[in-house]
Amino acid sequence: MNIDLNDFGLTAGREHDATLAVYRALKHCKEVERPTLVFPAGTYQFHPEKAVEGYYHITNHDQGGTRKIAFPLIGPEGLTIDGQGSEFIFHGRIIPFVLEHARNITLRNFSVDWERPMFEQGTVAETGEQSFVIRLREEAKYKVDAGRLYFTFGGREEPVWGLHDIDPNTMAHAYQSGDRISWSSFKKLRMEEIGPGLIRVAGGPRHMPKAGNIIVMRIGRREHPGLFLKDSANVQIDNVTVHHAPGMGLVAQRCTDIRLHRFDVRLKPGSGRAVTATADATHFTNCKGAIVLEDCLFENQLDDPLNVHGIYAKIAERLSDRSILVQLIHGMQKGVVIAEPHDEMNFIRSDSLTSYSSAEVVSADRLNADFTAITFDRPLPETMRIGDAVENKTWNADLTVRGCTVRANRARGFLITTPGKVLLEHNTISAPGAGIKISGDANLWYESGAVGDVTIRHNRFLACNYCFPDWGRAVIDIDPEIAEPEAYAESYHRNIRIEHNVFETFDIGIVYGHSVNGFVFRDNVIRRTSDYPMHKGMPFTIQLKAVKNSCISGNECPEDARTAFIGTEKVDISADHSAKVDGTNRIII
Amino acid sequence: MNIDLNDFGLTAGREHDATLAVYRALKHCKEVERPTLVFPAGTYQFHPEKAVEGYYHITNHDQGGTRKIAFPLIGPEGLTIDGQGSEFIFHGRIIPFVLEHARNITLRNFSVDWERPMFEQGTVAETGEQSFVIRLREEAKYKVDAGRLYFTFGGREEPVWGLHDIDPNTMAHAYQSGDRISWSSFKKLRMEEIGPGLIRVAGGPRHMPKAGNIIVMRIGRREHPGLFLKDSANVQIDNVTVHHAPGMGLVAQRCTDIRLHRFDVRLKPGSGRAVTATADATHFTNCKGAIVLEDCLFENQLDDPLNVHGIYAKIAERLSDRSILVQLIHGMQKGVVIAEPHDEMNFIRSDSLTSYSSAEVVSADRLNADFTAITFDRPLPETMRIGDAVENKTWNADLTVRGCTVRANRARGFLITTPGKVLLEHNTISAPGAGIKISGDANLWYESGAVGDVTIRHNRFLACNYCFPDWGRAVIDIDPEIAEPEAYAESYHRNIRIEHNVFETFDIGIVYGHSVNGFVFRDNVIRRTSDYPMHKGMPFTIQLKAVKNSCISGNECPEDARTAFIGTEKVDISADHSAKVDGTNRIII
Repeated sequence: MNIDLNDFGLTAGREHDATLAVYRALKHCKEVERPTLVFPAGTYQFHPEKAVEGYYHITNHDQGGTRKIAFPLIGPEGLTIDGQGSEFIFHGRIIPFVLEHARNITLRNFSVDWERPMFEQGTVAETGEQSFVIRLREEAKYKVDAGRLYFTFGGREEPVWGLHDIDPNTMAHAYQSGDRISWSSFKKLRMEEIGPGLIRVAGGPRHMPKAGNIIVMRIGRREHPGLFLKDSANVQIDNVTVHHAPGMGLVAQRCTDIRLHRFDVRLKPGSGRAVTATADATHFTNCKGAIVLEDCLFENQLDDPLNVHGIYAKIAERLSDRSILVQLIHGMQKGVVIAEPHDEMNFIRSDSLTSYSSAEVVSADRLNADFTAITFDRPLPETMRIGDAVENKTWNADLTVRGCTVRANRARGFLITTPGKVLLEHNTISAPGAGIKISGDANLWYESGAVGDVTIRHNRFLACNYCFPDWGRAVIDIDPEIAEPEAYAESYHRNIRIEHNVFETFDIGIVYGHSVNGFVFRDNVIRRTSDYPMHKGMPFTIQLKAVKNSCISGNECPEDARTAFIGTEKVDISADHSAKVDGTNRIII
Repeated sequence: MNIDLNDFGLTAGREHDATLAVYRALKHCKEVERPTLVFPAGTYQFHPEKAVEGYYHITNHDQGGTRKIAFPLIGPEGLTIDGQGSEFIFHGRIIPFVLEHARNITLRNFSVDWERPMFEQGTVAETGEQSFVIRLREEAKYKVDAGRLYFTFGGREEPVWGLHDIDPNTMAHAYQSGDRISWSSFKKLRMEEIGPGLIRVAGGPRHMPKAGNIIVMRIGRREHPGLFLKDSANVQIDNVTVHHAPGMGLVAQRCTDIRLHRFDVRLKPGSGRAVTATADATHFTNCKGAIVLEDCLFENQLDDPLNVHGIYAKIAERLSDRSILVQLIHGMQKGVVIAEPHDEMNFIRSDSLTSYSSAEVVSADRLNADFTAITFDRPLPETMRIGDAVENKTWNADLTVRGCTVRANRARGFLITTPGKVLLEHNTISAPGAGIKISGDANLWYESGAVGDVTIRHNRFLACNYCFPDWGRAVIDIDPEIAEPEAYAESYHRNIRIEHNVFETFDIGIVYGHSVNGFVFRDNVIRRTSDYPMHKGMPFTIQLKAVKNSCISGNECPEDARTAFIGTEKVDISADHSAKVDGTNRIII
């Protein structure tokens, strides 16, 4: 049944806050079978003042405090929202969409943007020996105080905490710029006003941008993703564009079956902006079923286009012979639910990251954002040690990424850490770091998910790692955080097939990896480009250690890129090495 | 069934955090019929690190953020906790008890204290023309920076934001000290370190304490009451003492039937402290059924011993012919639930505070901490204006306070704003402001509750208003915030009887009031003491305006205290004026 938002006081005017009309229409939807909420095509404004508020722990976002929500889809079943091409413009501190305990939901045909985004940008007016000067936008309101530059977002004054050097020709990170004038390196710099709208960045920046380049100035925290999906199932997002989000484009945690089709995180034409979302384009934590991304474009966001992973929680205390207290370690995971009754949990050794046992959850009480008390259906494994980790074995997804384009973002391409069946095909990938990263660690990010079945085929990789080594070692980087990968009999990752891809890149390194059982790199084409100068971060095309059952064969490549270094052995990647796989071309382990 | 906490890992040692043992025992209680959780008599420590966390909006406390809870009594029925005389010692940022959706609960035989309270105290070492010097405790850790003094509480550095001058002989606020070196008056002062542990308070304090007096230094926010009761029913608290709370002693909101017997908020002998709770001893917002306080002692808390009230929410927007958007105005009420389906709400004119209509709630959606959308069962009253208020007519309690003692706190005695049946008898009350205050306002605190039936009898009032006029005009102060009380035909309050009380006080003013229909002051005894010098804040014993149906008669009093000033008429309070009430001595209106 179609619900017309005009019936609930919606107006497209710039002065009208559409938030209450949406609240009223959503309230009406609860009384209707399979409602479709239809927006007359137009531009609608959403302000936080009268928006629904919720307390959430959003994975990989800054924790703490409540969040305002423009579309609070809490508990609906069978709801469709059709924007009919509408633009939804948000103001300040607000999350456009939250789906919580939502089932069979379709969102389609709208775009999300902010009136004023959570970053500022200027241009490099001049450069010196130890400093450079940024010219701010003429209309930019700013404050300089004690060597720090401040802008306002959502009513709060925020200090700039990092700079990104963007090449205006590519609208991508400048060659070898990376994070070298952000984070800790930024803290050493001083910002001084030397004239109206002219800011000198002094103190010897680690990277010197070119005059005329765009400087993106980062402010604020990761608090407001474009769409946040939690405990929801069967969600389709179709023809939806996120032009900006002061956080990730889309985040899903503990969801089942999510399909993104033409879900774009991309620059708005004519906006002049160099940045879309201020973090990942899409991010999936502890999801299950099928995650499918098709025909999506992810560009210019300030972190990875896709990250699929679970969470390692540290075993902090033994409470009884069947129950333990586990602790979330990374600040951006705190509060995320990691287990519920009937989930199967793996027990993981913290050094090797290998699983040595599993058990079913009888109860999981999240005491607070840090600690969860878990009781199992059987006695704890005898070999369990305090300091080991647990990960959720039940909540892991299959992943298909097909026909998507990644370009000009900060950091990496696709981050894959899920034991489900993974297929990446017909994508075009260019990233300043690794184009694909397959990791896993219980030391820094505590992101879990040893892979078991990954196929990477028919993709086109363009320039990657043009900010080497900030965000990766090679185009495909397989680097679980295991201090001594060769020390353990069991491999962390299994079955990674890289076939029929084209790598058009300016440097040598194509694959770096370790701790893999079952590795195929076959029938790929490598072409050398002159997009950027070579940095020769890797001396070989492929470099692997602690790898078993590898098959590298039949690749087409430039003469100087024929060598793979596998363990202690050099291998010609264009030769035929198919002996190690069986006749059906499938890896058997 | 008795549950022994020893079975869940409880240990009384100073190094042991009892929080997880309580969590485990409470989890076990859920599986047991009518459990009684028994503590072996001892001293137990509770730390916030592993405590259960919740997001709450606690009435009349500072809002925002989550709270850790040592005893999270969420949803229990028929639970008893017996401390057997145990001392529960809390550390930093934690709420000892939260009762939420709890029914038929008894808490008894324990005390609550903090290892280090959320205030500091020192003594006045010397006084000068425009400054005085505080000597800190020898073990006090402090920091002085840019004219501000800082102490640490719960891991957070907190600036001192107010000073209280305590007379060491009475352990009460010094005569006419009040809030004159706190709040905005404090902001003008400078704190300077002039030697180890010696802090000069410079800048011309509005009140000059005497050398040798105790100075209480306030830090932190109101975030952690001793006990917080929410949406609970039939709660008995018996022989429980709160020695300290960094917030109120006990707060209840939207609860039914609460009985406090020997619930004391009092100094721990030998502690040397001058302060108990840092806000009210007890506070009840939108409760119903019977609130009964018997044989309680409330001393030295930094706000009133008791406040019973509702909430006025401002009508901000008309959403449809049956629904409105209402707004909570006071920062310390934000987020508190003010209506649920089936509640009856009054519509209130903001100037006269009179109710002009009422309706039943069909739905009440708390959009966020500020705004709630309410839909009623009938069309909105035609005379409704934006800016009017609503109050909950259903959630109002009867109140009995019997045999309680109030002394040496900051501010007032009992604050009564409830339309239920109120009986205050056999209490002993001394406060630096009014001993009883009957108010109501839709301008500052937005605390609602026109009274309809109040009996104040057989109480003993000792020195009150020794900090006049900071916290009241007379011993009994009836002052709803109505700008022009004589402009309205209808009275705000009704039926206040003050009979058979003894007032032993140093000054003249006994009752100040306006906007009352039905006022009896009869058969009381007034005795003049020399506790403090007279300030003659009021020229008459009783001063009333906009009062109808008053009866003032048969009181015993000193010769200079015989005059009541009623409207424009002088009345002898010792004469017989019983003509206005009928033979049964009840007021009929």
